[in-house]
Amino acid sequence: MIYLDYAATTPVDKEVLDAYIKTTNNFFANASSLHKMGQESNYMYEVAIKEIQKTLNIEHDIVFTANATEANNLGILGIAGKYDSGKIITTKIEHPSVYNVMKHLEDKFDVVYLDVDKQGIIDLKQLEKELTKDTIIVSIMWVNNIIGTIQPIDKVIQLIKKFPKVKLHVDAVQGLCKAIPNFDVTDIDLFTFSTHKIYGPKGIGGLFIKKNLELDKRLFGSPVQMGVKPGTFDLSLIVATAKSFKKFYPTTLERQNYVKKLWEKLFNYLSKNPNIIINTPKENINYYIFNFSLPSINGETIVHALEQEEIYISTGSACSSKLKKPEKTIFAMTNDEKRSTTSVRISLSHLVKNEEIDAVIKCINKL
Amino acid sequence: MIYLDYAATTPVDKEVLDAYIKTTNNFFANASSLHKMGQESNYMYEVAIKEIQKTLNIEHDIVFTANATEANNLGILGIAGKYDSGKIITTKIEHPSVYNVMKHLEDKFDVVYLDVDKQGIIDLKQLEKELTKDTIIVSIMWVNNIIGTIQPIDKVIQLIKKFPKVKLHVDAVQGLCKAIPNFDVTDIDLFTFSTHKIYGPKGIGGLFIKKNLELDKRLFGSPVQMGVKPGTFDLSLIVATAKSFKKFYPTTLERQNYVKKLWEKLFNYLSKNPNIIINTPKENINYYIFNFSLPSINGETIVHALEQEEIYISTGSACSSKLKKPEKTIFAMTNDEKRSTTSVRISLSHLVKNEEIDAVIKCINKL
Repeated sequence: MIYLDYAATTPVDKEVLDAYIKTTNNFFANASSLHKMGQESNYMYEVAIKEIQKTLNIEHDIVFTANATEANNLGILGIAGKYDSGKIITTKIEHPSVYNVMKHLEDKFDVVYLDVDKQGIIDLKQLEKELTKDTIIVSIMWVNNIIGTIQPIDKVIQLIKKFPKVKLHVDAVQGLCKAIPNFDVTDIDLFTFSTHKIYGPKGIGGLFIKKNLELDKRLFGSPVQMGVKPGTFDLSLIVATAKSFKKFYPTTLERQNYVKKLWEKLFNYLSKNPNIIINTPKENINYYIFNFSLPSINGETIVHALEQEEIYISTGSACSSKLKKPEKTIFAMTNDEKRSTTSVRISLSHLVKNEEIDAVIKCINKL
Repeated sequence: MIYLDYAATTPVDKEVLDAYIKTTNNFFANASSLHKMGQESNYMYEVAIKEIQKTLNIEHDIVFTANATEANNLGILGIAGKYDSGKIITTKIEHPSVYNVMKHLEDKFDVVYLDVDKQGIIDLKQLEKELTKDTIIVSIMWVNNIIGTIQPIDKVIQLIKKFPKVKLHVDAVQGLCKAIPNFDVTDIDLFTFSTHKIYGPKGIGGLFIKKNLELDKRLFGSPVQMGVKPGTFDLSLIVATAKSFKKFYPTTLERQNYVKKLWEKLFNYLSKNPNIIINTPKENINYYIFNFSLPSINGETIVHALEQEEIYISTGSACSSKLKKPEKTIFAMTNDEKRSTTSVRISLSHLVKNEEIDAVIKCINKL
């Protein structure tokens, strides 16, 4: 079995799962309980938060959610909810959990979707032109989940600084622990992560929120987690998240260097195949994603052909895989419907072996 | 250590944790992925749903959330979101995750909070009087989390049947697996559960939704879980939930009979103490909760005095324990501020031993 869909989800690291199990067995009390057992759980919760802040070298507050989709929703709607009108700027290539929030906000707000060039990079001049005094949110993903391009968040920050009303939201799900930030994280108002993309359990994601930034509430209940995500949280999932960050954030560059070699091998071999169009550009990428089209074959057909050989890749975001529409990011880059219905994504990890790359190249060349 | 705060949360059953671990290790693929590994995860998800439906003998759809707070929010706001105005009827003794949603809805809706009598039971005549053609939601908890009273949901259903527009939401968190329903579950439009109240992990709760009942969306992203709770879900938490229901739902009566004896012992001994006022009535209760006041001592002081003896009880809902306000349910029952600031809750389980009850009685009598 060759799993090459790490951008959809990762297996859970043994040490991370052990941290989950230990916490479940040793600290089951509700962290909101007044008694000592509850306060011990609460202490462990605060320790986990401090560990994550220290690991990422940030001072942001952290709100833990069920997944990154919820985090993106609570963040963006948490800003938008404070206004009755205004302008919101995002891109044509966001994940459905940002894109569909924006579609919902079109009712009340002027939402602008930035174009991307043929390399999948946003047009900074267009952003500069669109920024106005009534712009309330700019939401731009750091690393694209379909093609792996890294957006110039550093330059976005520079442009936004002239507009103090703007809050910057960054979907960092495919960037954290997979790329070294090309920007000062301190400048980001809101950014999201997902534990199951970094060898931790599913069922938890979260939002980093700049200190003193208040969000409009979407959920109502207990005052925990700044009231943004009320109700009982799972300490075990939070401790597991801290463990994932502690283990995989400091090794980002080392793992990226390994993965880059796998990516280059894919590129070197598959670029020789005249039937293949490689969609992921060669530069400004994190090397974890290799996206290509075989214009003669539908993407879903490629996925199923490879699964016959027990090789598991994807047509794009798991979150939109069943919609059978042209892939949004590829279409935004190419304006080519054929290319965006025949695209597939190989997504990598430090867990992928060299010979697994050989095997997948062989299989693809047989298609 | 004597843990008597099972209404706040329960330890995770070993078999349930094993189911979580096995699923995490064997089915890590994203259930939304098109490939065979993803489809295997999706199959396990569908099996888990069918198992829960079969165990509870219901045909409701199930949406899994991060906790019961989120489930109550998505359910109530999911109905309210379809209207611009109307009437909503609830009670004065709901959990903060219902009560605070209602407070939020007061902006747009006419929200009526039903009184309760001295036994903590709602006034059915008041409900009958308040029901009108423009009533859109009736939300009444099944078993109260503070005193353990069981509401006459069967009679509520009868009254509501004359008003087809009304959707009935029932917070069933403290009832499921702790009491045999005194009503036909089929008649409930929306009801919520929390896995960590039934010896399962935290990080998951959910909403049972009557077939074909559409909810207004509060979150936006992928189309999974009927679009009500988009984004990647944790199959492991869902399988663990199914395991909790399969293990603890069929043994509800057997465990309740055991717990009833513990409750009666508490009652028989503590009712002799002239300093104690027992708040939980003797009838229409599920016997898992024993609430009393020591009017000479603040509730928080009692909690901390008992914790010196390593006995862990609570002042009330963990979700409002840090607010230091008179306990809402006790106040609604008694209109007595003293009694509602000096109340404490012992909450039971089949895991509690007879001698632990002896120990807690001894400690309380020393206060």
